[in-house]
Amino acid sequence: MATHISRHLHFAGHTISCIYSRSRESAVKLASEFGSIGTNISAEVPKNADYYIIAIPDDMIEDVILKFKDCEGIWLHTAGAISVEVFKEYQSRYGVFYPLQTLNSDRSVLLEDTPILVEGSSPGVLESIHLLAASISQNIHEIDSSSRLTIHLSAVFANNFSNHMVHLAQKLLEDQGIDGKLLIPILKETFSKLEEFNAIDAQTGPAFRGDQKTLQKHLELLKDKPELKNLYTFISRSIDSTRD
Amino acid sequence: MATHISRHLHFAGHTISCIYSRSRESAVKLASEFGSIGTNISAEVPKNADYYIIAIPDDMIEDVILKFKDCEGIWLHTAGAISVEVFKEYQSRYGVFYPLQTLNSDRSVLLEDTPILVEGSSPGVLESIHLLAASISQNIHEIDSSSRLTIHLSAVFANNFSNHMVHLAQKLLEDQGIDGKLLIPILKETFSKLEEFNAIDAQTGPAFRGDQKTLQKHLELLKDKPELKNLYTFISRSIDSTRD
Repeated sequence: MATHISRHLHFAGHTISCIYSRSRESAVKLASEFGSIGTNISAEVPKNADYYIIAIPDDMIEDVILKFKDCEGIWLHTAGAISVEVFKEYQSRYGVFYPLQTLNSDRSVLLEDTPILVEGSSPGVLESIHLLAASISQNIHEIDSSSRLTIHLSAVFANNFSNHMVHLAQKLLEDQGIDGKLLIPILKETFSKLEEFNAIDAQTGPAFRGDQKTLQKHLELLKDKPELKNLYTFISRSIDSTRD
Repeated sequence: MATHISRHLHFAGHTISCIYSRSRESAVKLASEFGSIGTNISAEVPKNADYYIIAIPDDMIEDVILKFKDCEGIWLHTAGAISVEVFKEYQSRYGVFYPLQTLNSDRSVLLEDTPILVEGSSPGVLESIHLLAASISQNIHEIDSSSRLTIHLSAVFANNFSNHMVHLAQKLLEDQGIDGKLLIPILKETFSKLEEFNAIDAQTGPAFRGDQKTLQKHLELLKDKPELKNLYTFISRSIDSTRD
């Protein structure tokens, strides 16, 4: 997250004055892209930046806020599931800058269309955050912490869980020595369809048709994989419940 | 399936001599696209076609084979989960022509890249089926009935189940009055990533990070939706088991 956001802000013309990380090595490496300071020493972090952006695991956010409570500026975190209130005891100007996207460190993503969900401690702060977000994306939404958590949960289904289904599919093939590339065209169409249809209107397959014989054949194939068999049964039942 | 395959074969230059369906209306409608006979009367079906292609629900395949057992030609079905042996008692030249794709009647799909899984009752018949398939796709695979069932199961995970995850995500948003369009960029990236990475290498999110606090927040949000909560727990556990 830190890599993606800092690169986008840098390319949008903002000055990244410092990258702070527990790992000096990774701080220096990222900072070198921007010709800025990379450090793991809190005293080396400028006290007067316009923005302080926290992009670290959720569990550590409060520790970092505490550690830098003498740094004044607009403090932001980038987490889907952390309330904006986490800043309240320590800072007066703060908010949230949450890109609704799946980010891997080894793949660059254009954030231009990615929704950035913003929240601010006051109308003025919110406006500043909005402007910052608008410098890297055209898709800004003011969303409170409670709705952001729902959206984050929804993204877990849309991305993490759907991706896991694809992983299970690839593993089923791999276990039989069948090339997983066979699935590429159906994956393309699956998601291309979702640009035109709601998922419910795009659905096909045995569970959605109520085709019990095929379900039984699939379960028979999974008889030595109890966990997968349960998952198959449970998801098929959930699909069945969406039929008219 | 009948619509998609017959259109593709027609555009590839084959003559669709007859469309037979239980519903005369739908047979006539589809046949009219090709200037051919549409009928629900079995006696009107030509006895001497090169190919007879069955594209109907799995449960009815054997009845149709029986009904037309005096029609000689190469008989094909288009099902993922039905063995080629279904023809054995009734025909001498037969096989399978299974496009590994998700097909909705109201959306056209180019089958050019779609894998067509073929199987034949003899090397000569297989060659004919291969040629037929090659007229509409560049991606033909000779696959036996047992492997085809595994591939079909895998496609259920890759397409039906992943699509259902997206449906659940869209429903979570809709229930809170949040626009489901917010998810379009993350869906695009989810599947664009899968062209470059295996799903396991693309995975992100709380379950994959082992982020128990976020999992708990999500479960709390689902406390009044027991079925969804169970699904969330079960899939998260399955994701957790894939971590290094």
